[in-house]
Amino acid sequence: MNYRMIIRYLAFTLLITAAFMLPALVISLCLRESRSAMAFGVCILVLAAVCVPIAVYRPKRTVMRAREGYIITGLCWFLVSMAGAAPFVISGCIPNFIDALFEAASGFTTTGASILSDLDPLPKGILYWRSFSHWLGGMGVLVFLLALSPSGTNGDSLFIMRAESPGPQVSKLVPKTRQSAQILYKIYVGMTLAEVLMLLLGGMEVFDAVTISFATAGTGGFAVRSSGMASYTPYMQWVIASFMVLFGVNFGIYYLCIMRSFKRIRQNDEMRVYLALVILSTIVITVRILPMYQSDMAEASRHAFFQVASIISTTGFASADFNVWPTVCKTILVVLMFIGASAGSTAGGVKVSRLVILAKSLRQNMKKLLHPNTVSKVHMDGDVVSDSTVNFVFIYFAAYVFILLVSLLVVSWDGLSFEATVTGVLACLNNVGPGLGEVGPMGNYASLGVASKICLTLDMIIGRLEIFPVLMLILRSNWKRPRIRE
Amino acid sequence: MNYRMIIRYLAFTLLITAAFMLPALVISLCLRESRSAMAFGVCILVLAAVCVPIAVYRPKRTVMRAREGYIITGLCWFLVSMAGAAPFVISGCIPNFIDALFEAASGFTTTGASILSDLDPLPKGILYWRSFSHWLGGMGVLVFLLALSPSGTNGDSLFIMRAESPGPQVSKLVPKTRQSAQILYKIYVGMTLAEVLMLLLGGMEVFDAVTISFATAGTGGFAVRSSGMASYTPYMQWVIASFMVLFGVNFGIYYLCIMRSFKRIRQNDEMRVYLALVILSTIVITVRILPMYQSDMAEASRHAFFQVASIISTTGFASADFNVWPTVCKTILVVLMFIGASAGSTAGGVKVSRLVILAKSLRQNMKKLLHPNTVSKVHMDGDVVSDSTVNFVFIYFAAYVFILLVSLLVVSWDGLSFEATVTGVLACLNNVGPGLGEVGPMGNYASLGVASKICLTLDMIIGRLEIFPVLMLILRSNWKRPRIRE
Repeated sequence: MNYRMIIRYLAFTLLITAAFMLPALVISLCLRESRSAMAFGVCILVLAAVCVPIAVYRPKRTVMRAREGYIITGLCWFLVSMAGAAPFVISGCIPNFIDALFEAASGFTTTGASILSDLDPLPKGILYWRSFSHWLGGMGVLVFLLALSPSGTNGDSLFIMRAESPGPQVSKLVPKTRQSAQILYKIYVGMTLAEVLMLLLGGMEVFDAVTISFATAGTGGFAVRSSGMASYTPYMQWVIASFMVLFGVNFGIYYLCIMRSFKRIRQNDEMRVYLALVILSTIVITVRILPMYQSDMAEASRHAFFQVASIISTTGFASADFNVWPTVCKTILVVLMFIGASAGSTAGGVKVSRLVILAKSLRQNMKKLLHPNTVSKVHMDGDVVSDSTVNFVFIYFAAYVFILLVSLLVVSWDGLSFEATVTGVLACLNNVGPGLGEVGPMGNYASLGVASKICLTLDMIIGRLEIFPVLMLILRSNWKRPRIRE
Repeated sequence: MNYRMIIRYLAFTLLITAAFMLPALVISLCLRESRSAMAFGVCILVLAAVCVPIAVYRPKRTVMRAREGYIITGLCWFLVSMAGAAPFVISGCIPNFIDALFEAASGFTTTGASILSDLDPLPKGILYWRSFSHWLGGMGVLVFLLALSPSGTNGDSLFIMRAESPGPQVSKLVPKTRQSAQILYKIYVGMTLAEVLMLLLGGMEVFDAVTISFATAGTGGFAVRSSGMASYTPYMQWVIASFMVLFGVNFGIYYLCIMRSFKRIRQNDEMRVYLALVILSTIVITVRILPMYQSDMAEASRHAFFQVASIISTTGFASADFNVWPTVCKTILVVLMFIGASAGSTAGGVKVSRLVILAKSLRQNMKKLLHPNTVSKVHMDGDVVSDSTVNFVFIYFAAYVFILLVSLLVVSWDGLSFEATVTGVLACLNNVGPGLGEVGPMGNYASLGVASKICLTLDMIIGRLEIFPVLMLILRSNWKRPRIRE
């Protein structure tokens, strides 16, 4: 294990976090919010003082293997969440550290589950930081680091990108990891700017437009007003909903668009299924909630589309209280919560592509049961899916269900309703944010006990990193010295 | 496809069903219940008239392959459920056919979900038939047929036993399928008689003792009184609860007991985990419900043990209304509902052994991720688990989740509470019976719509046959002629 390099990587990620606190500091200073300005100032100074000396020291060996990639990714997300929680505690906005950690992890993992009930009295600097953490966490702090790093220095850093990026198969867009990371961030910035622009055109305030675009881009879901999304105009809601759908698409598709490889886009099974799910769910929910909105088709379809887009993309904004919708609508939303959006997007959940691979593998295996001598492979997006990928999809799925069951048992101890317990765990593990019942779109997670909050914080990070990097941290054999000297 | 043999097998199973209606007919005649006597008489005559001519005709080829085994098993269970529903309809006890089919499928699949709200006014003959269907379905109609069949006639009938018996690995106890089936039924009859005896010793009425023993043995859960299990003495409840746990153990263990292979029993991972789950859950629930029973340890532990035994063995009896218990108790029960008992028992659910295999495979694959060159296998009960078994556990699991999601969407349309929708589907798919909320232990499934009832009926059969035989029925390539002549 190359400990020195692990520590150096961690120092770099904390420095990036500190650097990204600067805009929040500037906003706090401009608006004369002394407490939050002080909080950001202290955090930036402390992080810089600790991490700069570590970061400048260059280790001799820069070998990077799978285990280092997993360890760096797992530890990085815990450290960044803690660093991100510090301004909440120091500014006094969230005095309890566990609560602050929950909120920060919820931000970086793009979950959007909150323990705050009233946002309006909070300083703008803190609100900006909350929303901005979504943006940073959406594409990944380490991917950002890779994009920044001078060319040729970071060895075989694909392991890190693979550990941090969602989806069953992570491939580089171009042969170099660094360039792939840069392309991803360019697309990300471009789309975020497009959303800001469209919201400004609709007459939204600059602060709201920027923060909501951050939260949409990262598919996070932190609002900046207590009224949530309900206070914005229908035009703004349509824009936000459309961008939620767009940020749930694999960013590789946008790269293919830029490269004009339209044939490969047409072959993409995941995008077809994803869009089909959005359209179908919207139609069914619209039909079912029509009576609740005095048969106003425009309003019902807007709310249906907004909630479907929000939940499948695991953003978690709410334009209406879907907690009071009919059971079938709630069930559709819970199923979408579980599915999530596309691999290679900023969204959470099991991912459409994993379910497509599962379904195809199921079909193939049934045939094999009847005709044991046939050789057939699972195909996806026009390519063969390797057996090891299929195997890991199954492993992921099994691990997912185990974690879900254990979390359910922990969180149920607090005595929320059964509905809130199940959907709360699902919403945190899939980085959605709001569930149903007490933790529904109009509620929050404040009433939970310390054990549940820690469990859900873990779930959010496990969900964001797709389980393995976190499980690797607790696997003993990962830390043991290998028997053969490398 | 050997259609003639398939039809012959189906005729035999229907004849067995008719033969087993005879005791119900006798009871009805003795108690002068004219409507139910007439119903059973008509059913027996019609089934005999249709099936005897088919059964006596012997096909030339008796080749049996996997596909025939699956098709026979799948079709058999639909036909037997329909035949079993006929007495309910003809006697007028359940005039609606869909309701009667639901009730009969619930009986044969040992689910115990009911659409009846009041049992006391029903004729004893009908109540006997309801309970007896649990006993017949528990070990399997086809396994009974195999036990009966003259030696050497039934070709490679292991395929049928494999398709009908629960668990990831079905092996014969002894080299001959027929003898294995006989041993299983001998153990089954012996244990049922033991329970009847112990209940009679406690002073229970003969009718109740017999029917409740049938329902316990098949891990079914139909009661014979509207008051359910609450009206029996604590001694009786302890006896019933203990037998529920015993019938959730792999019957192979009892065979090993008889053969005095105690070393192999000690090696059994599944039994250890199963008993640990029962003990742990009972302790946690006892602690949590103690205040509800005025800190009466004896009563609280009895109710906790009874409910845990009932749910993990997927029986579904209730000695108390666990719907009003704290959320953590309900969540534990729902998790146990999902897990189910042991492979090779009469219980439903995913089965402890599948989860043990999943957990072990998960661990092994994590290690492989770090050390790609290590070769390691999953071990269970002291043996290596073959890769194809592990693979099929994953496939089963994925199929299970897909079916669960689709069923949720269908049943949610009826607008029960979210809690009742989720647990109702889970309870039917895992052959448990009662869920929470409207379909809780004090409620029933009567209020559901036709589509939901059909969906849940399918789920019960899918759950009992562990998915594949039913999926095979709808797989088109199963019915196609193979390209190469056999």
